[in-house]
Amino acid sequence: MVASRWTAAAPARTAAPRRRGAVLEQAILDAALEQLGTVGWSGLTMEGVAAAAQTGKAAVYRRWPSKVDLVADALRAALPSFEGAPDLGGVREDLLALCARMRAAMYSRTGFALRSVLHECDTATAERFHDVIFRGLIEPSVKLIKEVVHRGIERGEVRSDGTADYVCDVIPAMLMYRSKVCGSEWRDEDFEALIDQVMVPLLRP
Amino acid sequence: MVASRWTAAAPARTAAPRRRGAVLEQAILDAALEQLGTVGWSGLTMEGVAAAAQTGKAAVYRRWPSKVDLVADALRAALPSFEGAPDLGGVREDLLALCARMRAAMYSRTGFALRSVLHECDTATAERFHDVIFRGLIEPSVKLIKEVVHRGIERGEVRSDGTADYVCDVIPAMLMYRSKVCGSEWRDEDFEALIDQVMVPLLRP
Repeated sequence: MVASRWTAAAPARTAAPRRRGAVLEQAILDAALEQLGTVGWSGLTMEGVAAAAQTGKAAVYRRWPSKVDLVADALRAALPSFEGAPDLGGVREDLLALCARMRAAMYSRTGFALRSVLHECDTATAERFHDVIFRGLIEPSVKLIKEVVHRGIERGEVRSDGTADYVCDVIPAMLMYRSKVCGSEWRDEDFEALIDQVMVPLLRP
Repeated sequence: MVASRWTAAAPARTAAPRRRGAVLEQAILDAALEQLGTVGWSGLTMEGVAAAAQTGKAAVYRRWPSKVDLVADALRAALPSFEGAPDLGGVREDLLALCARMRAAMYSRTGFALRSVLHECDTATAERFHDVIFRGLIEPSVKLIKEVVHRGIERGEVRSDGTADYVCDVIPAMLMYRSKVCGSEWRDEDFEALIDQVMVPLLRP
């Protein structure tokens, strides 16, 4: 049983300072991520997360109406950041660097947690987590791809309509397709094949 | 309750001629597909399929050890066939015709059944049905894309290494990605954008 905020504080709670706002929120998200790693999606409960974060269940429910919302936010907050496009002087090298960054995110601790959640939950719930992948991984990647391609256009290295949506979707589409359908693990040479067989010919002026 | 082959035949069964081999197999597959449409993945049982096919449960289990195997085969058998690549004189028109054929398969009665099964069953079972999509839809499509591209190479219209795996995976990858991630319904103009922005520039010599 978990001590509610309204009952007498358990010994452990007397040690925890009273946290509010962003600090408490982060403590709950951290606890949720840790619970995912130990008891998995099925074992995780709002009560368990509250206890691990040394707070009450009401403090959790006030911010996240359901377990799906909480876990989605916990995963999202822990995904590697996608700030700043690489700038190595050529579109080929920049795209290879971006691919390596996407792979690092896919294979990060959070990436693995995300995939194990997807595997454990039912298909309707999985839809919700696909959104985490889209907004936290795919959307920022496409933004960086466009930045890299745009710089290539300015250098005269890339065709003038190279930032078209369909063109800049090719890398994430191939990453998703070949991971899911062909079981590709995306070694460095797979990325080189993708960039040299597809992206370089596709982008030439 | 369903009459087994070993008990006295029920009145309905006396009307059915004794079928064997491919004929009985097809009757069972048809019954499974019909049950999917009426009671869905969750409601479908091996007993129900046997009853609808006017045979015994043992005749079903002898061929398919589980419900997943039976449903996968039923869906596979009902997917539109992918025989013969289009040959309209140019790679652009041929690829557009192939895209339209892939869309027709995705939106066929069987395609819908396949998606609703994927939605109803758990993630581990869904993996098995992805294989049906791969072998029944993606693999034959890629084969036809390679045929079309190869003919383009012979006409001098396409770069000599145009049949490379990564190149010929771009169309199915984009179909999967933009359906799943962007919710695209693939209208004719979407296919034109894909072919004109991506495939034509990618394949030019």
